[in-house]
Amino acid sequence: MQPQGGENERGPTDEEAFQLAAAYVSDAQFARNIPFQTARRCIWYYRLYTRWVTWGPMYVFLALNLALAFLETPAKPQLESPLWVTMLLESLCLVAFSSRLVHLAKFTERSVFWKDPKNICVLVTIILTVIDMVIYVALTHSGYYIVRWSRALRPLFVINFSESRQLRRSFRNIRRTLPEILGVLVLFLFSIAIFSLMAFKLFGKRHLITGEGKPYFQNYFNIFFELYVLVTTSNSPDVMMPAYNSSSWYAIFFIIYIVVNTYLFMSIFLAVVYNNYRKHLKNEVRNSVFSKRRTMAKAFGILRERLGEGWAVSQQSWMQLVGMAVPSMSQAQRLLLWQVSDEEHTGHIGKQAFVRLTDLLNIEVIETRGRQHPLQSCAPRVYSSAASQALRHVVHHRFFRYFFDGVILLNAGFIAGDEASLAIRQAEWLFLGLYVLEILLKLYTYEPQTFFSRSNFWNWFDVMIVISALLATIIVHSTTTSTQILDFLLILRVLRLLRIVESFERFRVVIHTMINIGPTMVTYAGLIMVFYYTFAILGMELFQGKIRFFPAGSADAQPFCGNPLLNGSKFYNEKYCKNNFNDLSSSFVLLVELTVVNQWHVLASGFVAVTNVGARVYFILFHMIVVILVINIFIAFILEAFILEYTLDKGETESAIEKKIQELGLGIAEEDVAGNGMVLVDNMETQDQEPSGVEASKPADSRIMFKISDRRYRTVDTLLQRMFEEELAPEYEGPYDDHEDIDVRPQQLTLDNLV
Amino acid sequence: MQPQGGENERGPTDEEAFQLAAAYVSDAQFARNIPFQTARRCIWYYRLYTRWVTWGPMYVFLALNLALAFLETPAKPQLESPLWVTMLLESLCLVAFSSRLVHLAKFTERSVFWKDPKNICVLVTIILTVIDMVIYVALTHSGYYIVRWSRALRPLFVINFSESRQLRRSFRNIRRTLPEILGVLVLFLFSIAIFSLMAFKLFGKRHLITGEGKPYFQNYFNIFFELYVLVTTSNSPDVMMPAYNSSSWYAIFFIIYIVVNTYLFMSIFLAVVYNNYRKHLKNEVRNSVFSKRRTMAKAFGILRERLGEGWAVSQQSWMQLVGMAVPSMSQAQRLLLWQVSDEEHTGHIGKQAFVRLTDLLNIEVIETRGRQHPLQSCAPRVYSSAASQALRHVVHHRFFRYFFDGVILLNAGFIAGDEASLAIRQAEWLFLGLYVLEILLKLYTYEPQTFFSRSNFWNWFDVMIVISALLATIIVHSTTTSTQILDFLLILRVLRLLRIVESFERFRVVIHTMINIGPTMVTYAGLIMVFYYTFAILGMELFQGKIRFFPAGSADAQPFCGNPLLNGSKFYNEKYCKNNFNDLSSSFVLLVELTVVNQWHVLASGFVAVTNVGARVYFILFHMIVVILVINIFIAFILEAFILEYTLDKGETESAIEKKIQELGLGIAEEDVAGNGMVLVDNMETQDQEPSGVEASKPADSRIMFKISDRRYRTVDTLLQRMFEEELAPEYEGPYDDHEDIDVRPQQLTLDNLV
Repeated sequence: MQPQGGENERGPTDEEAFQLAAAYVSDAQFARNIPFQTARRCIWYYRLYTRWVTWGPMYVFLALNLALAFLETPAKPQLESPLWVTMLLESLCLVAFSSRLVHLAKFTERSVFWKDPKNICVLVTIILTVIDMVIYVALTHSGYYIVRWSRALRPLFVINFSESRQLRRSFRNIRRTLPEILGVLVLFLFSIAIFSLMAFKLFGKRHLITGEGKPYFQNYFNIFFELYVLVTTSNSPDVMMPAYNSSSWYAIFFIIYIVVNTYLFMSIFLAVVYNNYRKHLKNEVRNSVFSKRRTMAKAFGILRERLGEGWAVSQQSWMQLVGMAVPSMSQAQRLLLWQVSDEEHTGHIGKQAFVRLTDLLNIEVIETRGRQHPLQSCAPRVYSSAASQALRHVVHHRFFRYFFDGVILLNAGFIAGDEASLAIRQAEWLFLGLYVLEILLKLYTYEPQTFFSRSNFWNWFDVMIVISALLATIIVHSTTTSTQILDFLLILRVLRLLRIVESFERFRVVIHTMINIGPTMVTYAGLIMVFYYTFAILGMELFQGKIRFFPAGSADAQPFCGNPLLNGSKFYNEKYCKNNFNDLSSSFVLLVELTVVNQWHVLASGFVAVTNVGARVYFILFHMIVVILVINIFIAFILEAFILEYTLDKGETESAIEKKIQELGLGIAEEDVAGNGMVLVDNMETQDQEPSGVEASKPADSRIMFKISDRRYRTVDTLLQRMFEEELAPEYEGPYDDHEDIDVRPQQLTLDNLV
Repeated sequence: MQPQGGENERGPTDEEAFQLAAAYVSDAQFARNIPFQTARRCIWYYRLYTRWVTWGPMYVFLALNLALAFLETPAKPQLESPLWVTMLLESLCLVAFSSRLVHLAKFTERSVFWKDPKNICVLVTIILTVIDMVIYVALTHSGYYIVRWSRALRPLFVINFSESRQLRRSFRNIRRTLPEILGVLVLFLFSIAIFSLMAFKLFGKRHLITGEGKPYFQNYFNIFFELYVLVTTSNSPDVMMPAYNSSSWYAIFFIIYIVVNTYLFMSIFLAVVYNNYRKHLKNEVRNSVFSKRRTMAKAFGILRERLGEGWAVSQQSWMQLVGMAVPSMSQAQRLLLWQVSDEEHTGHIGKQAFVRLTDLLNIEVIETRGRQHPLQSCAPRVYSSAASQALRHVVHHRFFRYFFDGVILLNAGFIAGDEASLAIRQAEWLFLGLYVLEILLKLYTYEPQTFFSRSNFWNWFDVMIVISALLATIIVHSTTTSTQILDFLLILRVLRLLRIVESFERFRVVIHTMINIGPTMVTYAGLIMVFYYTFAILGMELFQGKIRFFPAGSADAQPFCGNPLLNGSKFYNEKYCKNNFNDLSSSFVLLVELTVVNQWHVLASGFVAVTNVGARVYFILFHMIVVILVINIFIAFILEAFILEYTLDKGETESAIEKKIQELGLGIAEEDVAGNGMVLVDNMETQDQEPSGVEASKPADSRIMFKISDRRYRTVDTLLQRMFEEELAPEYEGPYDDHEDIDVRPQQLTLDNLV
């Protein structure tokens, strides 16, 4: 693992050492895990690789690559594009992916590069896609029909994109959870098989008929399918009725079946998924934390200086390092973090305190300049006048909030009323005016930057809704009225009612928890999307054009969804024709319906009718993979996250920062003004004691205050780390013989050369 | 709290002291918590109260009381009984309950008795029932119709029956979980309300029609109900189709709705229930453990003797005490437990070791007399002959098991075949013969008592099935063939196939876990039953006779379930007429269907059609209480229990016993012979060292061996205690100012008088 270039041997400059250390810190902060060489040119490439100007466009290309399915056949007629367009776009994406790969190769060692399955996978997918494209173009030009199978591989780019760590982790966990699940799954299927056999023998000979007049429970495999559907509860109680109508005792068979298979086995699935996923996740998080610590240790190794017996990093180096690693952080905030790290004011910190920096960086500290209201500076006389003070007092008062809660409730009544009435349309103007007035008054009273600080969800929400409504209303009244804008306006009006929730403490907790775990849920949304996409492509290839939808009153309308095979089927009778695989968006809607589970057997029956009974396999596979596996993982995650939010208070590191903020007298008294979570800078005037460092950096007319963000997690990693915080010893860096993370072995030689 | 009788002051005899101590030990063992006075007569009454001869019949009366609903109007015609029969039976039950209450009053202090809400509740319920019965009889005789409302109160007897601790605990926990849930529930309903308003404004004006040709989303309250149903997924995707058919974009509205309300909110419900229920359960379990320890401390206080600085109980007293408290325990087992308790062989144990006795008693230690096979004693020559040994060797061999696994598989094929064929009917005889042979051979090879020991589930299962099948087959062939017996025989044959599961280690774990948590699930079944019963009585009073079922081809058949209001309704078209509230068993089946959720809105619509829209309240309430609350608690419990079973190994106390068993050389080598979990007493011959105590008590021809039962929990309490074991300090007896458990304050005065 020797550096291969000659550059490294020159001995790095100070600047380069800081560059490298900053790269390590930034890696640790974002839990990046990309193995790069420490030569100067490589670091430069690496820092470019991690800048958003290079990975930002990649997101666009990834999205474009997936979105191509909207344009390719089969697609909605208005979107369907000529072959050369989609081929060109796809080639563009492939070029982008390849160049990203080449960029990566520029700064990683060759042997490491070729050992990483991610890179191999991307490369192979690119090659396969190119081959498929060539064959497809050649054959379609010769008039043959051929399946574009490589489209199903597109999610692989997303998964193996280096920024998709969370997604890869989810997949790895699913893979590891599988063996355990398969055991239960086989037992579960065996149980259905046994019950099916019983049902076959009990009911088969009785020649009962179903509600639709078909023979009931005559064929073993149909029984098996029906009972599988019963586990999903979708055909309950219909599947039981013929038997139950024939004799009440037969209900016992079905009740036992439901208790055993629906309740017991499904709960066991949840338990197995929950237990295993949690176990593997814990392992992953532990590895990730250890890997971060080792990366930080490397940065420490670069900047350390001899201090008595041991090694330490001086305040100056530290400040410079953090300044380079997190350019967006203010001087004052850096000083605060330093003071948290350097607990004993020695001017140096040891390795352990240095390593803790990652955790500190992941806590969102909000910096509030205890600034005066702009009007106070511009027109102090007016702003401080008795009338102005009285006005501000009114806005501060809780009756101001109550009044607008009342307005919202009244508004709800008006919204429910008939829009055609003139009175109601005029009332809408009144309400809009009131809301605008409310915002203006609040802006007059509270300092704008505080009012619009990132953590004030409800203020943002409010302002956005009101401004959008204002714009939409103006558009509606000035131009010809379009239905879309009217609908949009309507939704905005109703959404405004949501604000009432905010007035109740109990609800606020639930809503805040939802907002807090939101970003993490994006990972699971990504996971589901990958499965959806693959199943959608598969479904389109299998079932496209078999079932068609004709809008009511269209000229070329055909009966039975355009397919006589559906004559008399439940699928057609229930008017499900639009649930088809004729384009990507329809497929997605259909897959959502399958995920919700209800009536999935009817949907499946439609596709079975137009193809053959083998189509059931597609639908059963989807149920097993998405509903039993992925949705259970999603539920397990929500369970875990909610229980964490409900039970845990602030983490250790957070409390440390908070304590320090209080110690330094830089805290801000939180006061819930007007119930909207806004922060009043109250101690502005009473403040006297201040640390020298902060003093130096602050502007003359403002004092800097800090506040820890309302328990929001900057990254998914932080949330996960919190889940297992108790079980992670603070210093341990984990075993160094880790196979998963290829870059975490200590490069002692290189580092020692550098220092 | 002074004893009030004069008897207590005489000073108790030694015998009485042991009686009292044994009562305490027995209380602690079964986590009983009944406050009794310590006077001799009271103890006598108390011991009578806890004997099965008194509480056994109570179960019968409780069951009879509930079962009365089968006989009372409305009931199945063949079961409907005259008024005097049910009234007589109910009076009988009330007398039984009253006498139980009087019995309890005999040995509890009056003030304690009247402070216990259980007793008050039972008394009030008895009085209310009597009043209701009198009014009912009077009014029906005068020709008035009146509702027997007190029938809905019957589950109260079950809940307040002193043996239903677990059930009461569940209810207490639900009560405590409610406030937290209500917050989320209100928010959830608010969310539906907002979405309903949006849907009303978006779709109401478009005059769409549903698949059934009815107006779509025209009325706010109907929309609210439809969207509530969508949360349960029951009307997905039907509720979306009209809007989706009109424009694809509308699918987004429904998808967002489903994600927010079905997935997010329902997961939050599960999380809140899980979290709160677990928290309260932990508290309850902690209190129960502390209460047990205090009860044991009382027993210790009675029997303790001075020993140097402290107090201790001698081996002799201990042995006598355990003999009295657990008469069923053998001398040898008692000695084993003593040796576990008295780790240092001092002949005395201190308080802590004494208190541990409860935990020891709750571990099922199986005593195996390493007895020879009876044939060995009867006919040693024959049994030890070369042929016999070869035979036994064959049975021991794994191919013996494989052979019968093959037979079972073959059998499965034959079962699936046509019964009418002669070959198959004859093959059945062959298979039955083979199974009987298998059992006989195993009985020849293995010692019968070991073979039939309580923990060998599969042996029991096997023998029961084969013997039942044998009997049923004989009956079928000797008498006129009845359908019921044929069906029964069929089920037996299919059940036999289950045995194949047992041959796979991976499946065995899941099955064993299911069997292990089985007893605890009975508590939850009881919980559900209480709700079912109350809802069934309520439903029968509200909806009886409104919807009737006429079997196909019956003479007096009427169309539309006997109610013209159902003409054209989906309820009638789907042939749901038999889902009605006309008798208890039909009501139960209907409630199960409502619990399964699917199509519940169709079922509800039927009852709305024959009454009015207010009937929806009944169905929504049922969904909220049973599905959202109770079923989530059930799932939470299964999650917890399964994760416990999967992750934990034996508890501390169990390992202590096991270690002692091994130390004493009394362990039995487990060897899984023929894969059926049977235990081979292999070390019978090699055994040499034995402790004196055990030696004395054992019969000449047998050696006693012990084995800890295969992780089966004797009581629900033990399982629950295991769940929270880590968090319970071993000595701590909990705070003594406990309000919940009224009898656990230390009765120091009384005890000191006794010793």
